[in-house]
Amino acid sequence: MGDVETQDFASLRLSKLQHTKGRVMAAKDIFHHAVRAALIKDQWIITNDPLTLQVDGVDFYIDLGAEKLLAAERAGQRIAVEIKSFLGPSLVSDFHVALGQCLNYRLALDSYDATRKLYLAVPVDTYSTFFAIPFVQRSVQRYQLPLLVYDPEPQEVVQWIP
Amino acid sequence: MGDVETQDFASLRLSKLQHTKGRVMAAKDIFHHAVRAALIKDQWIITNDPLTLQVDGVDFYIDLGAEKLLAAERAGQRIAVEIKSFLGPSLVSDFHVALGQCLNYRLALDSYDATRKLYLAVPVDTYSTFFAIPFVQRSVQRYQLPLLVYDPEPQEVVQWIP
Repeated sequence: MGDVETQDFASLRLSKLQHTKGRVMAAKDIFHHAVRAALIKDQWIITNDPLTLQVDGVDFYIDLGAEKLLAAERAGQRIAVEIKSFLGPSLVSDFHVALGQCLNYRLALDSYDATRKLYLAVPVDTYSTFFAIPFVQRSVQRYQLPLLVYDPEPQEVVQWIP
Repeated sequence: MGDVETQDFASLRLSKLQHTKGRVMAAKDIFHHAVRAALIKDQWIITNDPLTLQVDGVDFYIDLGAEKLLAAERAGQRIAVEIKSFLGPSLVSDFHVALGQCLNYRLALDSYDATRKLYLAVPVDTYSTFFAIPFVQRSVQRYQLPLLVYDPEPQEVVQWIP
């Protein structure tokens, strides 16, 4: 698995980002801010931060809601984005949590607006390492988890899958 | 949601259990021990504690593996059980984690033994409160999550669903 190497790399990346910002920011805030900025560069309007839903008395907080500018490609499309940094002590545990959240959020969204597509936002280095593992690819396929691959620095969308 | 009341009740239950045992045990250990004992009473043989799997270099640790005694009802059946106490600060977050773990564990089990059925073990008071919420019922249905409802004290199996 090379968990240790991957996490060392992730820590280095985080340290570099925190340094770039000129002050120490919480990891969660840095990645949230990065995805927000990347979406705006990609001509999305952030409509909800967070996107809150209540279904049967249960509260859900999805990190972002966004909508495409009318003049842009994919005009009028609406998305919800759950942002993960994958900086926890175990990538596998982080993935379990992300999967459970996304599947429940998708079910919750169905009650509101089934046309709003939910993406799991994954940093590009986690995508090219952990998400390259065949098991992880099978899980993403089996549970139909759309991914938004982002680069935290520069704050850019790398890929939408699918 | 009545999260506060439910969690207060759960804390009381835990406190009572810890007292019953005559010493303070970690909550996780109490519930793990309770499900193990309940399965043995129900004529299961514990074959793995934990049940470890490795798929594509990724390690998975499912709480228990068990098999039915040959003379018993459901003879020869093999199960895997992930045990949850639902004592975290948020029942919804605990449920996200449980769902993600179970779906990934089921996929991992497919590589080993697709006939071993995976159950999520849920304490009976959580089952009769949180799992009665329509959204939670829909999620359990949609993602086909078999439940093993257990009573931590007395350590007994209450219900298999389905």
